[in-house]
Amino acid sequence: MTIESVLLRPKSNHMSRTELSSLGEFGLIKHLTDHFPVRRGSTILGPGDDAAVLKTPQSELTVVTTDLLIEGVHFDLSYVPLKHLGYKAVAVNLSDVYAMNAMPQQITVSIALSNRFSLEAVEELYAGMQAACERYDVDLIGGDTSSSVSGLVISITAIGYVAPDKLVKRSGAGSGDLLVVTGDLGSAFLGLQILEREKQVFQATKVAQPKLEEYEYIIGRQLKPEARKDVVEWLQKLDVVPTSMIDISDGLASEVLHLADQSERNFVIYEEKLPFAPEAQRASDELNLEMTTCILNGGEEYELLFTIRQSDYDKIKGNPNFTVIGHESDEIKSSVLLTRLGQSLPITAQGWDAFLQR
Amino acid sequence: MTIESVLLRPKSNHMSRTELSSLGEFGLIKHLTDHFPVRRGSTILGPGDDAAVLKTPQSELTVVTTDLLIEGVHFDLSYVPLKHLGYKAVAVNLSDVYAMNAMPQQITVSIALSNRFSLEAVEELYAGMQAACERYDVDLIGGDTSSSVSGLVISITAIGYVAPDKLVKRSGAGSGDLLVVTGDLGSAFLGLQILEREKQVFQATKVAQPKLEEYEYIIGRQLKPEARKDVVEWLQKLDVVPTSMIDISDGLASEVLHLADQSERNFVIYEEKLPFAPEAQRASDELNLEMTTCILNGGEEYELLFTIRQSDYDKIKGNPNFTVIGHESDEIKSSVLLTRLGQSLPITAQGWDAFLQR
Repeated sequence: MTIESVLLRPKSNHMSRTELSSLGEFGLIKHLTDHFPVRRGSTILGPGDDAAVLKTPQSELTVVTTDLLIEGVHFDLSYVPLKHLGYKAVAVNLSDVYAMNAMPQQITVSIALSNRFSLEAVEELYAGMQAACERYDVDLIGGDTSSSVSGLVISITAIGYVAPDKLVKRSGAGSGDLLVVTGDLGSAFLGLQILEREKQVFQATKVAQPKLEEYEYIIGRQLKPEARKDVVEWLQKLDVVPTSMIDISDGLASEVLHLADQSERNFVIYEEKLPFAPEAQRASDELNLEMTTCILNGGEEYELLFTIRQSDYDKIKGNPNFTVIGHESDEIKSSVLLTRLGQSLPITAQGWDAFLQR
Repeated sequence: MTIESVLLRPKSNHMSRTELSSLGEFGLIKHLTDHFPVRRGSTILGPGDDAAVLKTPQSELTVVTTDLLIEGVHFDLSYVPLKHLGYKAVAVNLSDVYAMNAMPQQITVSIALSNRFSLEAVEELYAGMQAACERYDVDLIGGDTSSSVSGLVISITAIGYVAPDKLVKRSGAGSGDLLVVTGDLGSAFLGLQILEREKQVFQATKVAQPKLEEYEYIIGRQLKPEARKDVVEWLQKLDVVPTSMIDISDGLASEVLHLADQSERNFVIYEEKLPFAPEAQRASDELNLEMTTCILNGGEEYELLFTIRQSDYDKIKGNPNFTVIGHESDEIKSSVLLTRLGQSLPITAQGWDAFLQR
């Protein structure tokens, strides 16, 4: 990945420009969804009728989640390639299904487009969605296409299934449960900071700096995050059903508070246990940001945060996907971070300022 | 309904204005969804977790449909009250579920809002959605709330259920099948034309004309359309399973062509059979529009169009909900309208101009 590949992607990459109006709404939907094969036996009828038809796997529950993504609010097309955006839009939606310990099988995708988008641009977006559908083994079963007076709008709904005894809500954490996080944290946030900085440098100088190559991992975490399908598979394999679970979209601090709030429990997190990548540490040093602050408040990680009974610890011990970062405690009145210096700091969802001040 | 009630609805109706930012995203979702009780046994878990959880009624298929509504494209807030918009957004989405001969039970609602909307305005929108949920007996199970750089965006997904042998697709019409439409047509379109005209008069003169009262029915059809839940119930009661079905959102001509195309059949429609309300006729006269053109091309009716076997005719005969407007014919190469004068005109989806010229 070079800065040219990320920042210098004018529409002139494309050999031709086809106006969307030349296809019409029905033509566009058909054109875009034709490339999506049906993979799942539970998909009885895909796009093209008034509604899609599904057959729920017998004795399983259905899990439904939906996201609305708005240009200028959730993404900036000046440095997010459309293909990456399509992939990410699907992946982050599926992440919510995995956070229920369920397996997604279908998605619907609705988009609204202004006429600055060509057919070729929309094909790029759908190529990314197609790659995600393939990677996560889900079917695109329908959607809606509309014009937009301003920017791009993407609405995705994912449908998944889970056996009733495997369903994991946010509300089930119990006394003494261990708090576990997958992967490493802070990378997606720091990747965004690097992209934002390089965008400003590029806009000021029009000269591309080769700064992105050394941050390939964290930029990749921002532009092309993966949902943790593998974690749900691991939990199944290890015979662990978490007592509560959530995906990390708004930052670790916010998600810990959601589990605490909905389980009516409190957690202690140990700063020294928080997992991060060496490259993230390097970026945080260069940007003068504290690594712990980035971990607590940086969003869009799409790792999973969950609690398990202490008796399940031996099952996950030594698995490199999982890091125990803390535990439930009956002895505190609100969730806290125990710092390397031994301070006990209250965890707040808007913790950025509070932590900068210490 | 007076023009004042429709056109003169400044936000000053409200006693106070609460900024959305004062609640935050989670606060807003909770505030808005708290008023939606769970009605359906199939709803296991509603809003508040990573995803909603449903239990599909045993041995039934799941039907899923989604709509994306954009301010300035699908609705004009200068004459659509927010409460009506909320009601309509839900009703038209459910209409797609009924068009599969299925019963909707759950919806998700995502909205993006610019800061020109106050909490009170969003509450109006949700009050309309709540009324629709009550009317159609469906649960709001989740959604997403976001800021928007421009106008209001609404994305709704509906989930319904149907026994496998009752499912009706667009593709099943057979030889000689009768083409049946529910209710009357052209009203919603003519209601919109009246609203558009009065909006222009009002903007020019700032004086409200009492023109809307005499068109209460057709304006109501535009602003507060009902989905035909009762028709699905009637079909069940009469023991009729249509061979194909679609809802009329883009105009009768377009929908007839969808059934024809997907069933690989052709239809004859009889102009003299097309059902319309006396008030619609009066409006079309006043506006110098041909009633048949309004029926064929006017959208947003949300009536159902379906085909039945001739042997089922006795079951629906005399029921005021149903009008037989034509039939499948093996003897023609494309679908046609047989006019009162005996002309046979090809039906086209963009039929407006063609029909004006004859």
